[in-house]
Amino acid sequence: MAPPTPSAPVGSIGVALLGLGVVGRGVFEALRDNAAIYATRSGRPIAVRGVAVHDLTRARDGVDQALLTNDPRALAVRDDIDIVVELMGGMEPAAACIEAALAAGKSVVTANKEVMAKRGPELLALAQQNGVALLYEASVGGGIPIIAPLNRDLQANEIRSLQAIINGTTNFMLTAMAQDGLSYDAALAEAQRRGYAEADPSSDVGGVDAAYKLAILASLAFHTTVHPDDVYREGITQLSARDFRFAADLGYVIRLLAVAQRDTDGALDVRVHPTLLDAHDPLARVDGVLNAVAVEGDLLGRAIFEGEGAGSRPTTSAVVADLLHLVSSGPASRGPASRGAASNHPPESPPRQPPTDPPPAQFASRGALHMRYYLRVLVRDRPGVIAEIGRAFATNNISIASLLQVEADAVAGTAELIITTHHARESDIDRFMATAGMLDAVQDVGIRIRIGSASAGSRP
Amino acid sequence: MAPPTPSAPVGSIGVALLGLGVVGRGVFEALRDNAAIYATRSGRPIAVRGVAVHDLTRARDGVDQALLTNDPRALAVRDDIDIVVELMGGMEPAAACIEAALAAGKSVVTANKEVMAKRGPELLALAQQNGVALLYEASVGGGIPIIAPLNRDLQANEIRSLQAIINGTTNFMLTAMAQDGLSYDAALAEAQRRGYAEADPSSDVGGVDAAYKLAILASLAFHTTVHPDDVYREGITQLSARDFRFAADLGYVIRLLAVAQRDTDGALDVRVHPTLLDAHDPLARVDGVLNAVAVEGDLLGRAIFEGEGAGSRPTTSAVVADLLHLVSSGPASRGPASRGAASNHPPESPPRQPPTDPPPAQFASRGALHMRYYLRVLVRDRPGVIAEIGRAFATNNISIASLLQVEADAVAGTAELIITTHHARESDIDRFMATAGMLDAVQDVGIRIRIGSASAGSRP
Repeated sequence: MAPPTPSAPVGSIGVALLGLGVVGRGVFEALRDNAAIYATRSGRPIAVRGVAVHDLTRARDGVDQALLTNDPRALAVRDDIDIVVELMGGMEPAAACIEAALAAGKSVVTANKEVMAKRGPELLALAQQNGVALLYEASVGGGIPIIAPLNRDLQANEIRSLQAIINGTTNFMLTAMAQDGLSYDAALAEAQRRGYAEADPSSDVGGVDAAYKLAILASLAFHTTVHPDDVYREGITQLSARDFRFAADLGYVIRLLAVAQRDTDGALDVRVHPTLLDAHDPLARVDGVLNAVAVEGDLLGRAIFEGEGAGSRPTTSAVVADLLHLVSSGPASRGPASRGAASNHPPESPPRQPPTDPPPAQFASRGALHMRYYLRVLVRDRPGVIAEIGRAFATNNISIASLLQVEADAVAGTAELIITTHHARESDIDRFMATAGMLDAVQDVGIRIRIGSASAGSRP
Repeated sequence: MAPPTPSAPVGSIGVALLGLGVVGRGVFEALRDNAAIYATRSGRPIAVRGVAVHDLTRARDGVDQALLTNDPRALAVRDDIDIVVELMGGMEPAAACIEAALAAGKSVVTANKEVMAKRGPELLALAQQNGVALLYEASVGGGIPIIAPLNRDLQANEIRSLQAIINGTTNFMLTAMAQDGLSYDAALAEAQRRGYAEADPSSDVGGVDAAYKLAILASLAFHTTVHPDDVYREGITQLSARDFRFAADLGYVIRLLAVAQRDTDGALDVRVHPTLLDAHDPLARVDGVLNAVAVEGDLLGRAIFEGEGAGSRPTTSAVVADLLHLVSSGPASRGPASRGAASNHPPESPPRQPPTDPPPAQFASRGALHMRYYLRVLVRDRPGVIAEIGRAFATNNISIASLLQVEADAVAGTAELIITTHHARESDIDRFMATAGMLDAVQDVGIRIRIGSASAGSRP
């Protein structure tokens, strides 16, 4: 055991912090500023015994230089470490560090959605084999408790569906486009100016980030393994300011919705795409950078978890909660670090984890989706166009619910049609969109936005 | 150990069900219908080995007569019982049964808000002394996870405030009064017709039920002991249909809000009363029998937990989740019942419980509240009245924000004034209401409804 230092009293739990970015700094400061309260709540003092950073030469205000290292993997397996808190983000070296820590008998807390989405099942199995825990509440929904509730509080239910707004960046952009009439580019620039979007926003606006989080939630909710590649994904880059106006006129708002539900035949339908939600839907009111997850279960009915889905402080709330839970549950490592510690907790196994050998999922075919659709089609502005379009819909078994012709462009000789459909098969919509471009009347097939949830879902 | 019966395989966890009312029946059926799934999720089969009912002679469809007893206390301490599920409601004999079970080394799951509000700290201490658990997720908010999230997922936070709609009966009535213009009596009759209100509705409409639940939540959120008697309480019986119209005209909805918050001087402000909420407040949208709890923490920001707050199935969701959590956490009793059980779980102490020796709370004086108020005053319809009322407000340091004179009654010679104030001290409002009746202009002091949250709270 490493000799105790002033910041590592005997009997304390030794923590390694991997990463000192926005969230790492938040966790470091919370553990420092609330040390006495957290020791009371968890039953043990918590000592940060090492902090892994990328650049050792940079000054780190308020952080003892002796704690710093640029070798996260070596820190993660050090004898005086009980719990590793991984806040580096990205796949590597984060995944390798988590793996090494678990293999060395350390429990791990992570906020890493990419690692948990891509390698969660394997790492959870490794934790179980080693009698330690891997907790990841912060990986989805920032400070909103959702992983633990799915994993424990909703266990009595067969979950029917899960609908979530789990990417704050795009929700901020969509809210700005709707409420302030911003263009996509202006909304993105504003999100970047406020620090909500990165210089390369592709993971957020492309729906990749939301797909990671949905894979994590769906795996838990449906007791199976959903890989991000299993998630059908469309981002928000195709949306234009006029779609928000038309949506509002029709009584809808546009949200990047992550949906997971079990079809009547047992297949899993998992997808992330822009969705028109009725303006009265509880998720339609989730504005700006807020996140929300709506869960429907056979006993529960529908419950909604809403709050701040990102940012240093909310994410710190989730990371530290996992950490306190580990500490109060008993030994967090099987190494020498916690031996001889003055604890009033009897030996105990780590907190409940999801099963590590879930059955594989059957995924629903996207073509079988049965939803309502919003379509925006650019047509030539001449007589007979509506009839021609109408025939093309009928040929593809699509029934029109509303049709609006707007914004005739006299110079270009074009007009725009805004169409909502009754429930239709996605395969029929696909066929319409694939063939409509060949119609004489159609200049550009435009875009398709799905409306509400699938009829196979939970709203009869 | 009792000889295994067909419904009690060796290795199973023995459960005693105390009460077979609406919720007891729901739990019984869920455990029966989902036995295989729950055994997989918790790692052990769960066997209901006894059911305590009031009337042994009544036929109980689908329940083996051999399971029935009318002695809940004897059942609760039987050797073949590991976990006692108390669903009788009311103080006695429920509290005595819980106490006996804990003393006999059985873990207990209860939905009993009255017992937990009045005797929770003492019973939790008894559970800890006996190395067993007392879980009560179902006591507040039906199927909405809120006890466990407060007790674990939000532990990193200093909670600033908690605002909740936690009585479905009154929320249904208030929604009906607002949306359908029903009178109080008509709304109550409709709630009774639908089974939302009991024949004697006084606990719901008087705010007693909400005060029990708030005492439970506030004790957890603020790491202290709040007894229901510490909660200031006003029910909804004074509200009239016109208050809902006036509120709507002013941009508000009326909710029976349960509030707990820590004042700047550290005193706890805990109260249940009708509240005018801005129509855009997230809690204003919680309609009908839905419940919602908004929690503000220093790290978290604000999170909202919303869902079905009552009823057999949502409450069953919470009761069974606690039960599965106990079973998957290891031995749920210290008696012989679980010995020799085929379990792959190592010995372990019960799930985390709130500390059983919390410091006593200092409670805020109601008079020190600093809020905005809605007042409805019946005045004589003659010149000079407004001036006289205005002087009375000024004398009491109350500044008027809006004033509306409505519904002059020519026969009675009266008119009604609807007044909203700027922020004022509750003690000043009290003094106005105590003295206004003596004014020549005032026929009836009418009612006072608080607006929004206290300024000492979390909305700067």
